Amino acid sequence: MSDCPVSSAYLLDPSIPAEERVGELARSILPVAPAAEDAAWARLDSLTKPPRSLGALERVAARVAAIQGDVLPDVSRKAVLLMAGDHGVVAEGVSPYPQDVTWQMVANFVAGGAAINSIAESVGAELRLYDMGIAADVSHLEGVADAKVAAGTANMAIGPAMSREQACEALARGAAAAIAAADDGIRLLGTGEMGIGNTTSAAALTCAFAGAAPLDVVGPGTGLDAAGVAHKAHVVARALDVNRYDELDVLGVLAAVGGLEIAGLAGVVLGGAAARVPVVSDGYICGAATLAAVRLVPAAAAYVLPSHQSAEPGHAVILDALGLEPLLRLDMRLGEGTGAALAMALVEAACRMMSGMATFAEAGVSEAQG
Amino acid sequence: MSDCPVSSAYLLDPSIPAEERVGELARSILPVAPAAEDAAWARLDSLTKPPRSLGALERVAARVAAIQGDVLPDVSRKAVLLMAGDHGVVAEGVSPYPQDVTWQMVANFVAGGAAINSIAESVGAELRLYDMGIAADVSHLEGVADAKVAAGTANMAIGPAMSREQACEALARGAAAAIAAADDGIRLLGTGEMGIGNTTSAAALTCAFAGAAPLDVVGPGTGLDAAGVAHKAHVVARALDVNRYDELDVLGVLAAVGGLEIAGLAGVVLGGAAARVPVVSDGYICGAATLAAVRLVPAAAAYVLPSHQSAEPGHAVILDALGLEPLLRLDMRLGEGTGAALAMALVEAACRMMSGMATFAEAGVSEAQG
Repeated sequence: MSDCPVSSAYLLDPSIPAEERVGELARSILPVAPAAEDAAWARLDSLTKPPRSLGALERVAARVAAIQGDVLPDVSRKAVLLMAGDHGVVAEGVSPYPQDVTWQMVANFVAGGAAINSIAESVGAELRLYDMGIAADVSHLEGVADAKVAAGTANMAIGPAMSREQACEALARGAAAAIAAADDGIRLLGTGEMGIGNTTSAAALTCAFAGAAPLDVVGPGTGLDAAGVAHKAHVVARALDVNRYDELDVLGVLAAVGGLEIAGLAGVVLGGAAARVPVVSDGYICGAATLAAVRLVPAAAAYVLPSHQSAEPGHAVILDALGLEPLLRLDMRLGEGTGAALAMALVEAACRMMSGMATFAEAGVSEAQG
Repeated sequence: MSDCPVSSAYLLDPSIPAEERVGELARSILPVAPAAEDAAWARLDSLTKPPRSLGALERVAARVAAIQGDVLPDVSRKAVLLMAGDHGVVAEGVSPYPQDVTWQMVANFVAGGAAINSIAESVGAELRLYDMGIAADVSHLEGVADAKVAAGTANMAIGPAMSREQACEALARGAAAAIAAADDGIRLLGTGEMGIGNTTSAAALTCAFAGAAPLDVVGPGTGLDAAGVAHKAHVVARALDVNRYDELDVLGVLAAVGGLEIAGLAGVVLGGAAARVPVVSDGYICGAATLAAVRLVPAAAAYVLPSHQSAEPGHAVILDALGLEPLLRLDMRLGEGTGAALAMALVEAACRMMSGMATFAEAGVSEAQG
């Protein structure tokens, strides 16, 4: 068991209103102690390399050490939490793929045939699958955790995607998943998603939380042409217009233009922070979820590690709003947690360096002169 | 055994002039067949993901598949070949570290305490160590292959660093190491180096091969201040001035301002190409070695995979000259092969994706409409 002050059982307790559970979760997240990060840097600067010569890798190692409260950080057990959900806004024709692809791809994850399966295996990360709100019944698929709040969201272009209660419930279930993973001994979490239409929701969230304009954040997603992108930007603008929200009411925004898997992934970030497990945030959709989490609980930002920068234009806006410098820029735009899984390999290398390297004194290597 | 047309035994045969062995090696390198790369792209586009949505990862997978001549590439066995050598130019005060650090760090590699040990272990790569020309006697260090051509180079600021014969001998021994690794079943090679003073040699090579000016390529290396950088640029300019060379005579340039480990690493690139094993090129010094290899044998370029872009300014010039887009930009400037080892994790993920993913037809996933 992790020593997380909020348990996964509490977060899943239906007798407590979901928003109350989310509030308790938010209050349980503590800042990362600056002294822990200072201690990490002191160790890094004693190791046999020119000081700071491993660049971003050192920054990652220092942060993980500070989060774990140990100058010898350990991320040998890693898991990508992949959450799936459907989006009513697909009725507006925002994706070139049919909605069935959401459950078909989840079946592909179960069978091991998707990109995330290969990449997670390559980096030694477990893959945990969650049905947060797939439109189809996937109860026959083994290995998919049932966290379904609803069979997809409503069409945000004509009204709120979710009720506030649904958004809070999804968030609480996501946080419970992260804390359960920490209880299982997972020391590094990654986020991943599947949901046809979810770049449209991510775009709306980016506009709401980062003050961007739809035309500046909407991109081709899984493969729209220029006319498709223009139409999608129009749908995002309509969703933002139809749904009156107070941008400071994070849960209200999430309910209005978010998604069930996106709310769940915001919960993963908060659950990870509560359990003091670093969370590697994947690309555009996961980035929007992370931004929602950090807007709700600013202290959670210190528990988030960047992964890649997606080719989707809105992701740069999100990374900027989060103050995160991506570790990878590989022109990827697949989702599923593929960028987070790749970045986990770098995080693990950083942590192994931190714990495995000798100091100048231990190795008998001369230090720089003058 | 690999089916390499030039054997490692031939490359190490002292009865044949070294330049003749290098010539034979160069002639054995064949272009990568365009049809093999086309076949790789056809497979990539059939897999369950939006076409090209894995960006640079797909480009790497296609290239490795084409090099290996198999649409299901396999890089499960990986090795970083780390070559060490000393540089007479340290007499000019170009490094803040004493020359003894070269052998001390090699002892640290043997003991497992350096950054490359932790990172190579983290990505599952073997580390193979070669004494190409360390000034000190390291014969007592177990696990360091004796490929010493001389006890360090001469001071290139007052004359040639090596004789042409020495440069060719080092190159042949490096190529032999790569081919021997291929014979052992290694399917992916990385380059790495250790040698106090070798950023000065790399800078001179960059100027000679890429037509750059010393002030545009010389950087702080392991930690020089502004005055130190200016002095180092002056030393590079002197080396280029003192040593008259024909820039089209690659072996002549390498002998004049190269290094024994750098010539060895140019050999690793050519040996990898001859054996049809992709070579991940590390940072600045390895990049200079790769540039020398590719100037000598242009067909070898197709066998080189990029890793990171070093913080040293000259590396950007080299990557540009090689036409390589780095996979990582992490502000690293350590060397040892650390960037190559990190990139190997990405190359492995790319290859696993290529061989492990299901096609749309196999997975029963709907393709994009319209």
